[in-house]
Amino acid sequence: MIKIKGGVCAAKGFKAAAYAAGIKYQGRTDMAMLYSESPCAVAGTFTSNLFKAAPVIWDADIVHGRGRAQAVVVNSGIANACTGEEGLDCCRSTAKAAAEALGIETEDVLLGSTGVIGMQLPVDKLEAGARALAGKLAGGADAANEAARAIMTTDTHEKETAREIEIDGIKVHIGGMTKGSGMIHPNMCTMLGYLTTDIAIDRKLLQKALSLAVVDTFNMISVDGDTSTNDTLLLMANGMAGNPVIDTEDERYEIFKEALFDVCLYLAKEMAADGEGATKLVECTVRGADTKDNARTLAKSVICSSLVKAAMYGCDANWGRELCALGYSGVTFDPKKVDMYFKAGDHEMLIFTGGVGTDYSEEEAAKLLSEDHVEIIADMHMGDESAVAYGCDLTYDYVKINADYRS
Amino acid sequence: MIKIKGGVCAAKGFKAAAYAAGIKYQGRTDMAMLYSESPCAVAGTFTSNLFKAAPVIWDADIVHGRGRAQAVVVNSGIANACTGEEGLDCCRSTAKAAAEALGIETEDVLLGSTGVIGMQLPVDKLEAGARALAGKLAGGADAANEAARAIMTTDTHEKETAREIEIDGIKVHIGGMTKGSGMIHPNMCTMLGYLTTDIAIDRKLLQKALSLAVVDTFNMISVDGDTSTNDTLLLMANGMAGNPVIDTEDERYEIFKEALFDVCLYLAKEMAADGEGATKLVECTVRGADTKDNARTLAKSVICSSLVKAAMYGCDANWGRELCALGYSGVTFDPKKVDMYFKAGDHEMLIFTGGVGTDYSEEEAAKLLSEDHVEIIADMHMGDESAVAYGCDLTYDYVKINADYRS
Repeated sequence: MIKIKGGVCAAKGFKAAAYAAGIKYQGRTDMAMLYSESPCAVAGTFTSNLFKAAPVIWDADIVHGRGRAQAVVVNSGIANACTGEEGLDCCRSTAKAAAEALGIETEDVLLGSTGVIGMQLPVDKLEAGARALAGKLAGGADAANEAARAIMTTDTHEKETAREIEIDGIKVHIGGMTKGSGMIHPNMCTMLGYLTTDIAIDRKLLQKALSLAVVDTFNMISVDGDTSTNDTLLLMANGMAGNPVIDTEDERYEIFKEALFDVCLYLAKEMAADGEGATKLVECTVRGADTKDNARTLAKSVICSSLVKAAMYGCDANWGRELCALGYSGVTFDPKKVDMYFKAGDHEMLIFTGGVGTDYSEEEAAKLLSEDHVEIIADMHMGDESAVAYGCDLTYDYVKINADYRS
Repeated sequence: MIKIKGGVCAAKGFKAAAYAAGIKYQGRTDMAMLYSESPCAVAGTFTSNLFKAAPVIWDADIVHGRGRAQAVVVNSGIANACTGEEGLDCCRSTAKAAAEALGIETEDVLLGSTGVIGMQLPVDKLEAGARALAGKLAGGADAANEAARAIMTTDTHEKETAREIEIDGIKVHIGGMTKGSGMIHPNMCTMLGYLTTDIAIDRKLLQKALSLAVVDTFNMISVDGDTSTNDTLLLMANGMAGNPVIDTEDERYEIFKEALFDVCLYLAKEMAADGEGATKLVECTVRGADTKDNARTLAKSVICSSLVKAAMYGCDANWGRELCALGYSGVTFDPKKVDMYFKAGDHEMLIFTGGVGTDYSEEEAAKLLSEDHVEIIADMHMGDESAVAYGCDLTYDYVKINADYRS
């Protein structure tokens, strides 16, 4: 597996475009389109929030129903959530406009929206945007990058990546783009993520690989504990790599699964590190847990703690807060058995063992915690299971961004 | 029931004192003592965090064991949590010093600590403090107030209250003090809370009344979602009012229960309003829920949302965030049936109904949200159950306080 450029256009036959539709933001692009030259098998995971945005309802119908599509239209600025029938009508109109311009069926068009909840989208702008995007489609890294930028809200930079693997001697590609960066606490999927691949694979295996990848990637990140109404992760496979179709869980499937996981993990960590107002990526590894689920719960409890996050911002080795978060996670363990470490790069410090703090150097710990990427490691000494969760620090800028987001 | 002055000294036979032991803070009191002239039946609830602080272990043994005590010694600055055997030894030494000075048994002394986790308490200062406090005990409102101030950490003001009720024609009193104001997300009890009463009541009924009161008061507040290692709520009843002992759940028990609930609710709301960095009390009422537990879960989900809290700080009627928090709470409901209102004082605005936002005035909503006490009301239209949760806004000062708490 090698890391390559090209984002969502790295896989054969995929094109992208971005457009400034003037939906809410000024002076920037706010609509993106992905298009595959041939029909794709699609897999997807969606928010568990009961208030599902209109495009989530639209996409879930297609993904769980016919299971194929050929294009995606995404807008930023307005989420089209809590918008009732009018919101669903807007979905249909936008998909129809895109489909007519692309010469495909309305149900071949998937949709995504992100931004303020509750406002109605200006349907005329969406329709005009969809038509304009169809005329601007292009392959290559530049087009992919422009699309990744158009779907950003409070993100400070675009998030995209791609991998190349070899299956039956044939080069296969997987690329993707995502956006954060607030209301990020995915449950069954992430905020907005679009993955493309030219692999030829059975649709059920495609969904299985995606569902597995999500569990330990997008579902293990949190910026603020808020599970969005719009969380959507889509994976489109057009088969244009030309490999013999993968229809059993053989070695080829494993190679694909591993590469897909790698793409998801890279994008998930990028989202955590670029959480609203964040200055650093905070990673919590729990090892020695009795079950995998308990390891995940413990790790997530630590990275979700407001007090841990604020201490990380202050580079303060206030380690009682990490232990406190383990202790209220709901998982049963023996507090006396826990070892806890702080780590950055190759620098690891044992902070807590045998029920008490170690005689560590505060100065050294503060220096370690001032790095861009800080790891918290808890060894529960209960078993062999481990999990990693990804978050960020809590800063003044998080409050600033979210106290006046709409204005 | 009437509201009276006197806090923890409002009930007959209770005395209090405060002392500057120099444990961690400079230029302020940091130890408090409560003492009853006669032995008390005690009830208590404690943190569900697995990392239980040493004084929590000490108190739980006494409350669930012998069930009586006569004094409480509390310190602020250091939490005596994650301190192993040395922490427990410090508890014993402090209780012993207090007991000797007061002429009671070591096990008659309950303890409480709050502050930084992981540091050891200076046992000599605690012992000297306990002796000094015993010599300074006094009844009356001033002594109670001084004790309430000595247990504060990041609180901006002391929290105390008292009520007078009549039982069998005899005046009975209930008073209390609590402290917040970060790591507040009580589970089975609150941070530190001390309640005193002169009622004569069976110990089991005392515990039952306290456990019931906690559910819809202290357990319904949250400042930051972090359940502390030290959460402790104690209720001491010395029987000195002279009423015939209450030993069944009769009308007199109901009168007491109601007054106890009122004391707990007052103190809980005070804690929420004085959450770290908070500028306002945010109250969420959920009504029309199918079960009481679901009403509680929904209301707490809203007040715990970082995005709701930041919007409240910005006085931004970004109502999608409240709905989003209802939607990911885990409770099942029909999103189309939900009505949501913002309210402050007598001013109530319908914001969301029938699955979409109303045509409300943004200007009017921003004005409403700028009040000190803001209510969010969600009617689920599923049944007759309701619950109220109490929280606060998320501000720059929360981050400031917690990014450099230890320094």
